[in-house]
Amino acid sequence: MQAIDKDWTKTEKKIAQVAFQKAYEQEVSALMKDVKDKINHISDLEDLWRLHDYLSARRHDIDGKYDYRYSVLIFVFSQLVREGWLSLADLEGLEPAKQKKVAALARM
Amino acid sequence: MQAIDKDWTKTEKKIAQVAFQKAYEQEVSALMKDVKDKINHISDLEDLWRLHDYLSARRHDIDGKYDYRYSVLIFVFSQLVREGWLSLADLEGLEPAKQKKVAALARM
Repeated sequence: MQAIDKDWTKTEKKIAQVAFQKAYEQEVSALMKDVKDKINHISDLEDLWRLHDYLSARRHDIDGKYDYRYSVLIFVFSQLVREGWLSLADLEGLEPAKQKKVAALARM
Repeated sequence: MQAIDKDWTKTEKKIAQVAFQKAYEQEVSALMKDVKDKINHISDLEDLWRLHDYLSARRHDIDGKYDYRYSVLIFVFSQLVREGWLSLADLEGLEPAKQKKVAALARM
């Protein structure tokens, strides 16, 4: 059973949006830093194409991951918690059942 | 009529290899510098994906262009001259007919 729009209260939506945005900004900022570090260590074309491959993978990952639909948000949050871009504390205020699901999925 | 291996003397092959390598090194070096400049001006994810698109295009271009087969070398050199990675002077020592072909194709 998937959560849909009406399963989220106005307050929960607000909390979800803030958490989502926070994770996105943290991940993007870390990626920028990472790319700038990597570029300093590039010495030949092979290194540059390796950076290109890395960007291809990160773009695919980020484009797919940040999907703000209420039907998939529990899964999105669990992945973000698992990867360290969000903590469970960021989701406080969501109904306990949602927090519990995120926590359980994040451990998988 | 395409030039093939036996149409190139040993001396010409040596000149061609040096010219090919020179163009490759110049283009790669310019690309590296360009990417390092671009990375300093990246401020958001959209800029980063624009850099990724740029690298995809350059990789495709470079992978396709540097084709050291004697059957296509006249065309490769003409493109490199047109783009400024080689000068006609780099091809001095090739038989005049080859130099003339490269020069004519480079103007197209």
